[in-house]
Amino acid sequence: MERILSSLHIKPLQERHLAQAQTRLDSLTKPRGSLGRLEELAKRLFAMREGQMPLIVNPAIMLTVAADHGVAAQNVSPVPQAVTRQMTHNFLNGGAAVNALCHAVGMDLRVIDAGCAGGPFEPHPMLLDKRLGNGTTDISLGPAMPREICLKGLASGVSTAADCVRQGYACLGVGEMGIANSTAAAALYCALLTLDPDAAVGPGAGADAAMVRHKVGVVRQALSANAEILRSGDPVNALAALGGFEIVLLCGLMLGAAAQRLPVLVDGFICGAAYAAALKICPEAASCAVLAHTSAEPGHAKALAKLTGDAKPLLDLGMRLGEGTGAAAAYPLLRCAAAAFNDMATFNAAGVTVD
Amino acid sequence: MERILSSLHIKPLQERHLAQAQTRLDSLTKPRGSLGRLEELAKRLFAMREGQMPLIVNPAIMLTVAADHGVAAQNVSPVPQAVTRQMTHNFLNGGAAVNALCHAVGMDLRVIDAGCAGGPFEPHPMLLDKRLGNGTTDISLGPAMPREICLKGLASGVSTAADCVRQGYACLGVGEMGIANSTAAAALYCALLTLDPDAAVGPGAGADAAMVRHKVGVVRQALSANAEILRSGDPVNALAALGGFEIVLLCGLMLGAAAQRLPVLVDGFICGAAYAAALKICPEAASCAVLAHTSAEPGHAKALAKLTGDAKPLLDLGMRLGEGTGAAAAYPLLRCAAAAFNDMATFNAAGVTVD
Repeated sequence: MERILSSLHIKPLQERHLAQAQTRLDSLTKPRGSLGRLEELAKRLFAMREGQMPLIVNPAIMLTVAADHGVAAQNVSPVPQAVTRQMTHNFLNGGAAVNALCHAVGMDLRVIDAGCAGGPFEPHPMLLDKRLGNGTTDISLGPAMPREICLKGLASGVSTAADCVRQGYACLGVGEMGIANSTAAAALYCALLTLDPDAAVGPGAGADAAMVRHKVGVVRQALSANAEILRSGDPVNALAALGGFEIVLLCGLMLGAAAQRLPVLVDGFICGAAYAAALKICPEAASCAVLAHTSAEPGHAKALAKLTGDAKPLLDLGMRLGEGTGAAAAYPLLRCAAAAFNDMATFNAAGVTVD
Repeated sequence: MERILSSLHIKPLQERHLAQAQTRLDSLTKPRGSLGRLEELAKRLFAMREGQMPLIVNPAIMLTVAADHGVAAQNVSPVPQAVTRQMTHNFLNGGAAVNALCHAVGMDLRVIDAGCAGGPFEPHPMLLDKRLGNGTTDISLGPAMPREICLKGLASGVSTAADCVRQGYACLGVGEMGIANSTAAAALYCALLTLDPDAAVGPGAGADAAMVRHKVGVVRQALSANAEILRSGDPVNALAALGGFEIVLLCGLMLGAAAQRLPVLVDGFICGAAYAAALKICPEAASCAVLAHTSAEPGHAKALAKLTGDAKPLLDLGMRLGEGTGAAAAYPLLRCAAAAFNDMATFNAAGVTVD
């Protein structure tokens, strides 16, 4: 399993491609820099494609990864664990927010079962079975999963990203569903970014103040129950100790996207924890990641500030739903960036006086 | 002409429709409020339609309004006046940023000539001739246009919005092109919102620091040259004194959209000045307006803070191009809001346990 990670070829974006893209952007009929962050996106897309024109970001696919968490037993969510499975059915039946948003923005949607409690689902054309178990072990008592299972999940994410490219997708969005996964994500942020649980923990799906305080305690417990494993400083160990099956899959998807030079829209708080792990495993994984939105979950902005400095997500709309909804909402901005870069006339061609 | 304004029926959104929409939103399979500002948009769209389901925001049309400004003679822009006309040709030829972005997000685009210098354009299927003159008079010397021309432009905007509805459009975006129009817009903000020229004036299409200082002086001159007209406190007088033909048209479009209950995406700094005038003429015009983005032009956020308090635009991407590009970039968020509201399953229907 370890071989799969070591054989990943993830390259940083090349300065020369970024510079070429800047030259083109400055030749287009607009004041220099006036498309703001759309220009930054266009430059990165051009460099991801190693200088190939045109920029292409469709067709696009959203992968919403679902799994269950043993720590749900610790009363960290107002929502019962059964809802992970119920919502997965809701995705497959087309009734969830991510279905509506993907339809609105023109993304295909597939649901990955990374390990929901209650065993495998019936086969369904929208469902990919990538189960790593029947829900994780309670992280407040010990590791969520063995390291081998974590590596298996990372490899599974990597190969699923490659499958997307083989199927012709030019852009990936990632989202998740898993009751109690904001507890696992908060614990991971603490371990990977030395964030304090008081900063990392928030209401998630709607915990009240008392439950948030309790959740902080559960995260501290998880960090101490796994202290020995975490001492290694190895991000795969941290993922195995504190992650969820969906978080591991998401981390693998991001690593795989980077290896494939496939732009990947990273959703909010939970996906951000998977992204933090991906960057600790391989900092060059940043090359293809686009942070879609800042979640209303208060720990998200704090964690991103530690992780990426002042690189802010594209949207800040007070969303905190997960599933990939923030990634879907941000996808049209990639289309705008690509379209401006591909289709605008130059000053010369349009006969417009250069400013 | 005055009759057209006094016969406009613009009603505020009804609390009971907003409350009905909230009830529906809270029945959908997601934590309450977790779609953030998309929920706020859905509520407003539902109330604009007076409680009719489904919410519909397409087809959508962008109207990019172009005109010239006498104050361009005062060296307030690094770009020569001829570029207004050149860029209008670029719109008609499909080569500008707004063409690319409208195509990317699925909006139709029409260009309105509200009064470019150099006389009427050749007829073109994308062009609407709503000329109010051959460029405005230099506002630093006196009024941009007579009050009657301003009223004619407002009426023209109002009737154009009605035409859009008659043609089946369910959403309007507005944008502009006009060399030196950031000077006119800044002067309008100062007059309508008692903003100081130092706060309202910025680089526009790319003025350097010295030119910005000079531009501040030109705005002060415009305010003093028109002081007598402005003393009336009448927003139509302010528009006539300091506006541009495109700004007047845009103001009329927003008033007309409100009268038609047509959601209208308001672009950046220049459109914001037209919006400020629309709200001064009729505060209920806010009912159908959606502020698309905060421009990188520094006066925009300051003016909006005065105008709308803490109601922030949807996007903040450092864009400062105009043409309607910010409105186009924000349009998919309306589609997302409508899709979630229309298409999501309720907790009951999906068999999901309510949190």
